[in-house]
Amino acid sequence: MRLAVFGAGAVGRSVVELASEYGHVVTAVADSTSAAVDPEGVDPAAVLDRKEREGSVGDAAPGDALAASYDALVEATPTTLGDAEPGFSHVRAALEADRHVVLANKGPVAERYDDLRALERDSAGSVLFEATVGGAIPVLSTIRDFGPAHIAAARGVLNGTANFILSRMAAEGLGYEHVLAEAQDLGVAEADPTFDVDGTDAALKCVILANVLGDGGYALEDAEVTGIRDIPGSALELAAEDGQTVRLIGEASPDRVRVGPRLVPQNGTLAVTGTRNIVQLETENAGSLNISGRGAGGPETATAVLSDVSRLR
Amino acid sequence: MRLAVFGAGAVGRSVVELASEYGHVVTAVADSTSAAVDPEGVDPAAVLDRKEREGSVGDAAPGDALAASYDALVEATPTTLGDAEPGFSHVRAALEADRHVVLANKGPVAERYDDLRALERDSAGSVLFEATVGGAIPVLSTIRDFGPAHIAAARGVLNGTANFILSRMAAEGLGYEHVLAEAQDLGVAEADPTFDVDGTDAALKCVILANVLGDGGYALEDAEVTGIRDIPGSALELAAEDGQTVRLIGEASPDRVRVGPRLVPQNGTLAVTGTRNIVQLETENAGSLNISGRGAGGPETATAVLSDVSRLR
Repeated sequence: MRLAVFGAGAVGRSVVELASEYGHVVTAVADSTSAAVDPEGVDPAAVLDRKEREGSVGDAAPGDALAASYDALVEATPTTLGDAEPGFSHVRAALEADRHVVLANKGPVAERYDDLRALERDSAGSVLFEATVGGAIPVLSTIRDFGPAHIAAARGVLNGTANFILSRMAAEGLGYEHVLAEAQDLGVAEADPTFDVDGTDAALKCVILANVLGDGGYALEDAEVTGIRDIPGSALELAAEDGQTVRLIGEASPDRVRVGPRLVPQNGTLAVTGTRNIVQLETENAGSLNISGRGAGGPETATAVLSDVSRLR
Repeated sequence: MRLAVFGAGAVGRSVVELASEYGHVVTAVADSTSAAVDPEGVDPAAVLDRKEREGSVGDAAPGDALAASYDALVEATPTTLGDAEPGFSHVRAALEADRHVVLANKGPVAERYDDLRALERDSAGSVLFEATVGGAIPVLSTIRDFGPAHIAAARGVLNGTANFILSRMAAEGLGYEHVLAEAQDLGVAEADPTFDVDGTDAALKCVILANVLGDGGYALEDAEVTGIRDIPGSALELAAEDGQTVRLIGEASPDRVRVGPRLVPQNGTLAVTGTRNIVQLETENAGSLNISGRGAGGPETATAVLSDVSRLR
């Protein structure tokens, strides 16, 4: 397939780098200020090198990438709330041109799911978005395989940064601010960690899960969200005395979305450590199914994007 | 889809029972001595009731089911070694008639994989076999989504009976014979537990994984297999002192298949308890991915069969 990749952050760059391994060709790459376009396929190394050295991916304008020849648009620009722009406009342009869309950007699927499905219904293209939930973990394709009607609920640890902080606090007996600073030093938490520690990122993923399980109707404002900022170290010590620990657990069902700190057994399935993610699906006929793996990272998320692209063939 | 179901054990019966929930119609059911055939769809309740009361599924001969109208043949007769008959002949007949095949029977995929793929190449039908490895756990579809070339190896706990015995021995400090008898009482182990405790069942699943990862070439005779009969309770006690326990671990890569008791961390990912299964995939670009769930059982395995059927659409 010929891919037009929008967004040149960690995920977009990894898609450009790995596409050929999966048998695909990148015919356009755009970041917020520039684009590289070549109907025969851009040179991935040259584009990535230029991005690193000069901050731009090429000499063309970002809009030129939308006009390029491609079979699937990969939307990997930063997630925005509300109208989910500019990602949503990229998606709209691709679907109106009867092209496929693969999303790593959570905005359009979390905030404008019903608009997205309406555009897809009128298009010869399809929309896939495995990369928006749980990075490399194949959550959405598993739900699709079982059939959403046969999954009662999904829950799990969906934010690696919050999980890293909680597991370090529990293991080392350290306070929130101390571990947050450590996580920032390690690059696990961003300078402004709000999106992760307030539960917004996990909530967006749960909203996407609820949209898939219930066929739409959810946006971020429908989620009940509590973050991890106010958890005292003493709460983790108290939990440990009882063989428990605290994790930021997201839950999605066709009629409810919520994210918040919950007590879970210390050696239990949901108590993954570090930045790992886990999703537990409650199936109708086959009990619970657990899938865990790396929930973020450029190559990990790019792998999910490229698996989606392969599904479109 | 119209399904012809071969085999009326726990899995075959559950497929008959659940098919309509997934939008499919069962037009034929066969056990080893009888068949029920109806081009409009058999009455699932009547067939299952008759099987329970009389031991047969209908008045027709088993061969009549092969001549029935169907889109996909579901092969759920018992796994046999060597020539994998009679399952293999059912599969051959369906593919030669350009019909699809979904296998729950491990024999044809473990023992005659290359023959099976050759028949598939000459057929308009496709072969899927998610149910042969790990019951409800979507191992094979995950490998297909990532692309077998991007998975270096698969390992895990693939036999629930052996895992039940080992986890009970470790938790209760009981000997092998004692726990085996208990497992037989509970219906977790069969009267003749050889297939499970000698590692044969896990080895067949690993052979299937190796065939998928390496595009064929493996049969049971290529696997190095050690069972769990000879593990003394004292070995588990010794392991526990060091925070370890013993699990029957199967490993498959494109160049090796082996099954045997291995030390694993007591609270580690691979130390699932009871009859649960887990598979760990080593991916090329996305680290390790763990999937755990119910590895056996009628409805669980039938769910995997019906997910495969849905993929054929």
